[in-house]
Amino acid sequence: MPLPQEFHDIAKRVNNWGRWGASDEIGTLNLITDEAVRSAAAAVRTGRRFPLALPLQQDGIQTGVIPGRVNPLHTMVAVNLEMFGSGTVATSDDIVTTALQAATHWDGLTHASHSGRIYNGRPADSITAHGGSEFSGMEKITNVLSRGVLLDVARALGADRLPVDHAIGPDDLDAAEELASTRIRPGDIVLVRTGQMRHYLAGDKHSYGYPSPGLSIRAPEWFHTRNVAAVANDTLTFEIFPPEIENLWMPVHALHLVEMGMPQGQNWNLEELAAACADDGKYAFLLSATPEPFTGATGSPVAPVAVK
Amino acid sequence: MPLPQEFHDIAKRVNNWGRWGASDEIGTLNLITDEAVRSAAAAVRTGRRFPLALPLQQDGIQTGVIPGRVNPLHTMVAVNLEMFGSGTVATSDDIVTTALQAATHWDGLTHASHSGRIYNGRPADSITAHGGSEFSGMEKITNVLSRGVLLDVARALGADRLPVDHAIGPDDLDAAEELASTRIRPGDIVLVRTGQMRHYLAGDKHSYGYPSPGLSIRAPEWFHTRNVAAVANDTLTFEIFPPEIENLWMPVHALHLVEMGMPQGQNWNLEELAAACADDGKYAFLLSATPEPFTGATGSPVAPVAVK
Amino acid sequence: MPLPQEFHDIAKRVNNWGRWGASDEIGTLNLITDEAVRSAAAAVRTGRRFPLALPLQQDGIQTGVIPGRVNPLHTMVAVNLEMFGSGTVATSDDIVTTALQAATHWDGLTHASHSGRIYNGRPADSITAHGGSEFSGMEKITNVLSRGVLLDVARALGADRLPVDHAIGPDDLDAAEELASTRIRPGDIVLVRTGQMRHYLAGDKHSYGYPSPGLSIRAPEWFHTRNVAAVANDTLTFEIFPPEIENLWMPVHALHLVEMGMPQGQNWNLEELAAACADDGKYAFLLSATPEPFTGATGSPVAPVAVK
Amino acid sequence: MPLPQEFHDIAKRVNNWGRWGASDEIGTLNLITDEAVRSAAAAVRTGRRFPLALPLQQDGIQTGVIPGRVNPLHTMVAVNLEMFGSGTVATSDDIVTTALQAATHWDGLTHASHSGRIYNGRPADSITAHGGSEFSGMEKITNVLSRGVLLDVARALGADRLPVDHAIGPDDLDAAEELASTRIRPGDIVLVRTGQMRHYLAGDKHSYGYPSPGLSIRAPEWFHTRNVAAVANDTLTFEIFPPEIENLWMPVHALHLVEMGMPQGQNWNLEELAAACADDGKYAFLLSATPEPFTGATGSPVAPVAVK
Repeated sequence: MPLPQEFHDIAKRVNNWGRWGASDEIGTLNLITDEAVRSAAAAVRTGRRFPLALPLQQDGIQTGVIPGRVNPLHTMVAVNLEMFGSGTVATSDDIVTTALQAATHWDGLTHASHSGRIYNGRPADSITAHGGSEFSGMEKITNVLSRGVLLDVARALGADRLPVDHAIGPDDLDAAEELASTRIRPGDIVLVRTGQMRHYLAGDKHSYGYPSPGLSIRAPEWFHTRNVAAVANDTLTFEIFPPEIENLWMPVHALHLVEMGMPQGQNWNLEELAAACADDGKYAFLLSATPEPFTGATGSPVAPVAVK
Repeated sequence: MPLPQEFHDIAKRVNNWGRWGASDEIGTLNLITDEAVRSAAAAVRTGRRFPLALPLQQDGIQTGVIPGRVNPLHTMVAVNLEMFGSGTVATSDDIVTTALQAATHWDGLTHASHSGRIYNGRPADSITAHGGSEFSGMEKITNVLSRGVLLDVARALGADRLPVDHAIGPDDLDAAEELASTRIRPGDIVLVRTGQMRHYLAGDKHSYGYPSPGLSIRAPEWFHTRNVAAVANDTLTFEIFPPEIENLWMPVHALHLVEMGMPQGQNWNLEELAAACADDGKYAFLLSATPEPFTGATGSPVAPVAVK
Repeated sequence: MPLPQEFHDIAKRVNNWGRWGASDEIGTLNLITDEAVRSAAAAVRTGRRFPLALPLQQDGIQTGVIPGRVNPLHTMVAVNLEMFGSGTVATSDDIVTTALQAATHWDGLTHASHSGRIYNGRPADSITAHGGSEFSGMEKITNVLSRGVLLDVARALGADRLPVDHAIGPDDLDAAEELASTRIRPGDIVLVRTGQMRHYLAGDKHSYGYPSPGLSIRAPEWFHTRNVAAVANDTLTFEIFPPEIENLWMPVHALHLVEMGMPQGQNWNLEELAAACADDGKYAFLLSATPEPFTGATGSPVAPVAVK
Repeated sequence: MPLPQEFHDIAKRVNNWGRWGASDEIGTLNLITDEAVRSAAAAVRTGRRFPLALPLQQDGIQTGVIPGRVNPLHTMVAVNLEMFGSGTVATSDDIVTTALQAATHWDGLTHASHSGRIYNGRPADSITAHGGSEFSGMEKITNVLSRGVLLDVARALGADRLPVDHAIGPDDLDAAEELASTRIRPGDIVLVRTGQMRHYLAGDKHSYGYPSPGLSIRAPEWFHTRNVAAVANDTLTFEIFPPEIENLWMPVHALHLVEMGMPQGQNWNLEELAAACADDGKYAFLLSATPEPFTGATGSPVAPVAVK
């Protein structure tokens, strides 16, 4: 089933292939200029930090619905091992096996492909079981630190969490930007809050998963116009799921990752940060969110920290 | 073989058990106050970022010498999988199995124990194969972002890299602080450069491993006096290896992790940052270095970024 | 809570410590003599084979109830990789991460300990995170091939599957031996059928798990008297679960593995074999069931085959 | 570079596609009839068992040369865990991460493909990162037990081990069959001894790996004519490596696995068995060698046992 014309029309408008050269592998992260970083530093006012990551553990958010995406399995290869003889200093050492997108993570640009292509027009079959992503692997993303802006759509619409059939479109983003009292600037990282994480925090990981509110196919153009560097939110699926348009699955993934070359983050816990932003009315902050540089990976865990 | 008196004497002087309460699990990271973070933000002048992590890959720094500490193994569970039917948006998904201390990482407070104790006087057997660290697991370290100061000992001593039998003591640290033209402040994170990483960057991972220069048993007291929050360097062993004192293995691990409750970082690539600091004479910067929050883990990968 | 006197009384009667020497690491497997193996070969009449293993896969029998015992995760590191150039012969290669007791397996002698001891009186702390079992690791079990006898307790009692509160004791084993029309001989491997596997084969893995019928604390002495080499059955818990005697958990594990040094097998699919035995009235066969020799492991997968 | 005509000529002669029907997934294993199994049982004379597997451990035969094919990593998730309270029976549990072809193993039929095809003419792209082999996965091989015959080519040629440039062809196999004093029968499993394992047993895993003697491109036809069910040997590469014909890599893999649908085994330790066969002059035995049934896998570990 071919992708519908509507998809292709938007794709054309947001496409960034070639924008940063034919050899570019990091897409919109190029928008994080030194100036954007200085502006991030300037957003620090109190020094208060808000960690946005979920813990990485066997009892995590994955329920088995996404094939192969297992929760982290933590095991030991040494527990108080006196390697140099009895009575010496002992050490402990751990091993994990985990899906790289198990919990709070960035989708790398190669997590999605469509029509045989990945970002910058490269062939999708440059991703292989042997080596993963030849281009745009997570090791190419060496730093993600910029100004972050919380777009608290749930709060802007007066909800604790959005209804599961709510597709976040331009109007919603406008409303949340209005609430934020700051304009999105080029190189900003936008955090979109749906409130869906509340399900998980209340112990209900199945309701958290799906159905889920999330970004509409109409959102990417909004981010594109504003030259956003990256977008993350507090859902498992990132975009509304099931999708708005019948049989058009994961269009936002395709638009962000493939067409725009823009990383997107999932399963970010925005609850505490959102409460603090609502409290002081400041929705901009320094955001530090560099993923682990797994070579060839199509996504990677991140432990983001917002500093207000 | 019991630990020597010299060790116990220093241990007594640097011990932080109870300093932040009997229930504390993060030790010297308590020293990163909001004020320290504001001071980190103020250290940003140009916005230029320096990533300090090595890529996480099968061909990594581990050589098999440390039992069970395997390099990351990256595998795929989906490659351009059209989950929703032919012609739809496709996705790729990765799995890794890795030692948590395989490459650039923080040692958690429970990575070392001695005399049956871990940080804050808790019993070492609170670490188990089942669950890992009950206390002070890596999930307790939710943010590490403070002012960083590079103490470029190699440069201060006029060397590209320190000789392998050089144990970095107070004099060396004084000399490097002098070179840095800034005073270490409470809550700072200190990066100590030996230049040993040059071996690895030149492709010689065996020479990189050991013998290795590193911190002396006399260094922890220097850090303790200055109320440093954490220390990282550019070696595999962190401290000089083989050790200065015969049969006293890993005393610095024991002093930092167990006695002081201070995380220590290994395998940090400081070369580019050091060149830039030498260039502009500014050795202080914002350092963002939050480890992945693996529950119960005794150490964890980190992708640190310095911002000058 | 100390183990009750009843347990200690039985333990004394079935204990095999020292029976095959102080250095023995394989316990009752010593009973599989060349003669027993010849008798196994003689039991082959038609050449028909009955595989008894469940497939090893992500969608396996583990439900997450036993901490850390994950189903096999199968991933790829090469898919049709033309390692030597385009157009050459291509290869595919797989990686698995699995609990060694995920599906059809043998418990090794060190899977259980009690009162600080493992089989042959060795200290339980000879099992460590670093290296696993110093003694009686699965690599010591180099072959398991003997005469097998099916004791179809369910059929002997006229049930498709035993009620979940049925603890299989000596009377039941006598009845099943009667049905089998053969006497158990020294060195035989006994397969005890409860019918519980039918739950799993019907797609209900939760009912399969527990509550579960299984062996009674009175069964080990029956096996001991007959000099059985090993026992396996078609349940997850092996022994009745929850246990017969309040707060006495896993006594059969302790008696078989620790006291007798007898491996026990779990999650064996006996349905087809049982049907064939009922059909021809022959309950003895050659059984080949050598586990994978993972060094230091406390258990290991096995793909048993019965040959009638 | 296309495969040479010589390859295609042999391929045509040994091809078994369709021989056991269009839906067949196990190839020459179909040749193991009940009669062949009875003949295996009849080959048991003394009951003496010879295990042929190498232990599965971190310090194994893999040296890192084959990308992603890691040695088994054994870790613990429980060590003497008293799950039901202090003083109760304790349990230990292990996890492994391993390449399925790390040590002694069977290549499944889908381990190799050529010209876009796997066994029985199916498309090679039926193997995916997601799910592995749709057809002929290792779970389809539910039993491998037949008469085994040792063809001790090294001994037949009067060598402890064959020179590294020795490609085993029909003459060598004839000579070894002559030595064996038995005719190969349909459904037999042939074990070919080169003596190369002596390198590994002497502690030299690099010499063991390659260069290596092994089967010649002329061997498959010999096996085909005799209707052999499977072939295994005592090398890492199975066939001579580097190859006999320049730029024709892994032709024997392609002929056996793709064209004939015949599993092949590698890294089998035949030394003890060979000594015993030389001793008593009996080279036929019962061979039990069922691989672990990992679903979708292209190869799997096996713990083979020969019974004389």
